[in-house]
Amino acid sequence: MAAARANPSASARRSTARGARTREEILHTAAQLASVEGLENLSLGRLAAELGRSKSGLFAHFGSLTELQLAIVEQARAIFSAEVLERLSPQSRGLVALEQLCDAWLGYIERGVFAGGCFFMAISTEFDSRPGPVREKLALIMGYWLRNLERRIREAQELGELPTDIEPAQLAFEIHALGMGANWAFQLFDDPQALQRARLAIRERVAQLAGGPIGLQR
Amino acid sequence: MAAARANPSASARRSTARGARTREEILHTAAQLASVEGLENLSLGRLAAELGRSKSGLFAHFGSLTELQLAIVEQARAIFSAEVLERLSPQSRGLVALEQLCDAWLGYIERGVFAGGCFFMAISTEFDSRPGPVREKLALIMGYWLRNLERRIREAQELGELPTDIEPAQLAFEIHALGMGANWAFQLFDDPQALQRARLAIRERVAQLAGGPIGLQR
Repeated sequence: MAAARANPSASARRSTARGARTREEILHTAAQLASVEGLENLSLGRLAAELGRSKSGLFAHFGSLTELQLAIVEQARAIFSAEVLERLSPQSRGLVALEQLCDAWLGYIERGVFAGGCFFMAISTEFDSRPGPVREKLALIMGYWLRNLERRIREAQELGELPTDIEPAQLAFEIHALGMGANWAFQLFDDPQALQRARLAIRERVAQLAGGPIGLQR
Repeated sequence: MAAARANPSASARRSTARGARTREEILHTAAQLASVEGLENLSLGRLAAELGRSKSGLFAHFGSLTELQLAIVEQARAIFSAEVLERLSPQSRGLVALEQLCDAWLGYIERGVFAGGCFFMAISTEFDSRPGPVREKLALIMGYWLRNLERRIREAQELGELPTDIEPAQLAFEIHALGMGANWAFQLFDDPQALQRARLAIRERVAQLAGGPIGLQR
């Protein structure tokens, strides 16, 4: 009896695990597609065709287009987190942490983690004039990223690495804009030098404020 | 007879002028819509509904969706030119010209000339991974804009206002990225301070290189 009870339970666990894996595979493909073609264009029909699955099967996983869009954004957030945020050494603080974040971030753009360039720059630009839950979620995620940069700048001030008369939000804005400009030029002009331009500009801006160089890779 | 010949000719001229005006009105509405909803989503059907016209009437004006998209981009280029490039005094050179260009450009973003923020940042981000004539035209226009900034930087070097060891394309990249970051934050966060952040960053960057302040408005 114990074995009989354990069997359905193990099978149910396997089925749940398989469902979660399927869902993640769908969302991974969907996030790649959305980075190229946009999120609004990504209908359940288009995604079903790409995956060789039935539209009704996808509908069972997500229920509505907005739910699918929110799930794709969440999947992209997890990918960004693994590719950028988790590359930061846990003990890093201040300028070292800022430098590691910028390196990981520009490297993620350069490596083409998403086929259409940074998912968040593409999709937040697409949705910035479309009120609703997708725009709200994107604004939250991008706000979190900017505050992550700000936090490292504030730490650098506390460590005496940057002067205290710099507004962290201003420097975070500048760093983010330079990376955004690099992603844009890299995509539109196929220009790998764009990443180098952003590295140089961020390095020089921080060095000018810090009174000495920082060591962004290359 | 002369009067009889003159009449159809004047009427034909009026009809051509009316056709051109109609076409421009259609494209003006289309460019506004595209800045909010994207260019790929803008079908002839969607545009016909917005304008209260027949789809076949629009088709007579443009023939294909790609022709319509290219015409919208051209119309947006004319609007950008009138709102930004033509605000530059014809006799301006070097840093004065660079400053006037940046003022006009950031002002155009701030005034909301396009309902969904800068048409070119939205649409070039949308099309940067979609090969074809629309992406090619956008890359040409954006390349022209960057070279316009570079030209003013080179003039400033020739006038002795900026040191000669600055690469014009690097500084143009930085200035463009900061404006792009401002447009993005202004749209996504409804944050008017974003424009001020870009003005401050551009002013400080140029002043640092020029060895003295430049006078961006506000």
